[in-house]
Amino acid sequence: MQRIGWVARLKPEKADEYIRLHADVWPGVLDMIKQCNIQNYSIFVKTLPSGEKLLFSYLEYTGDDFEADMRKMAAHEETQRWWEVCHPCLEPVEELPDGQVWAPMDSIFYLA
Amino acid sequence: MQRIGWVARLKPEKADEYIRLHADVWPGVLDMIKQCNIQNYSIFVKTLPSGEKLLFSYLEYTGDDFEADMRKMAAHEETQRWWEVCHPCLEPVEELPDGQVWAPMDSIFYLA
Repeated sequence: MQRIGWVARLKPEKADEYIRLHADVWPGVLDMIKQCNIQNYSIFVKTLPSGEKLLFSYLEYTGDDFEADMRKMAAHEETQRWWEVCHPCLEPVEELPDGQVWAPMDSIFYLA
Repeated sequence: MQRIGWVARLKPEKADEYIRLHADVWPGVLDMIKQCNIQNYSIFVKTLPSGEKLLFSYLEYTGDDFEADMRKMAAHEETQRWWEVCHPCLEPVEELPDGQVWAPMDSIFYLA
């Protein structure tokens, strides 16, 4: 099992929209996430005193080829439409390949 | 079960020390964390292009009084010594009570 942390910035003017979308994610998108061997997936938001908003994702990957599962997800038409709605709400914290918006973090501690 | 996300800044000049400490956390500290009903606890780090370093914690709380368990942890002498070593490596992202360094985030999405 791989534990994955991702970080992104949430555009303040799009925060309400993003949060509303994630309160009711499209069922086909949720189903594809499960099919790609992802479980126990949380997203957290924090508004800093500056007004900047940070997003953090935590998820667990139970498959054996994460890159292949990510390609499978990216090829899913409904997920593509979902990302077209969600990604304009986000700003990557660093330069990322291929229109990705979530930057991977490094795990430095784990306690079962 | 409560899923908790926390965020903090890691002082760049203290990053190596903090990461080294967390590669080998004192056993008494780990034991107290478990006694306080915390499980599946990860810490992630990200260095931004600016050089700023963000820390994110994910943990699961299985007890029924988180505040009481946090007070129990704060009263544990070895944990206090551990915090004396670790907390100077961190900078809170917002003003927090009582020398706390980890700011709570809001959960906006969960998929089992």
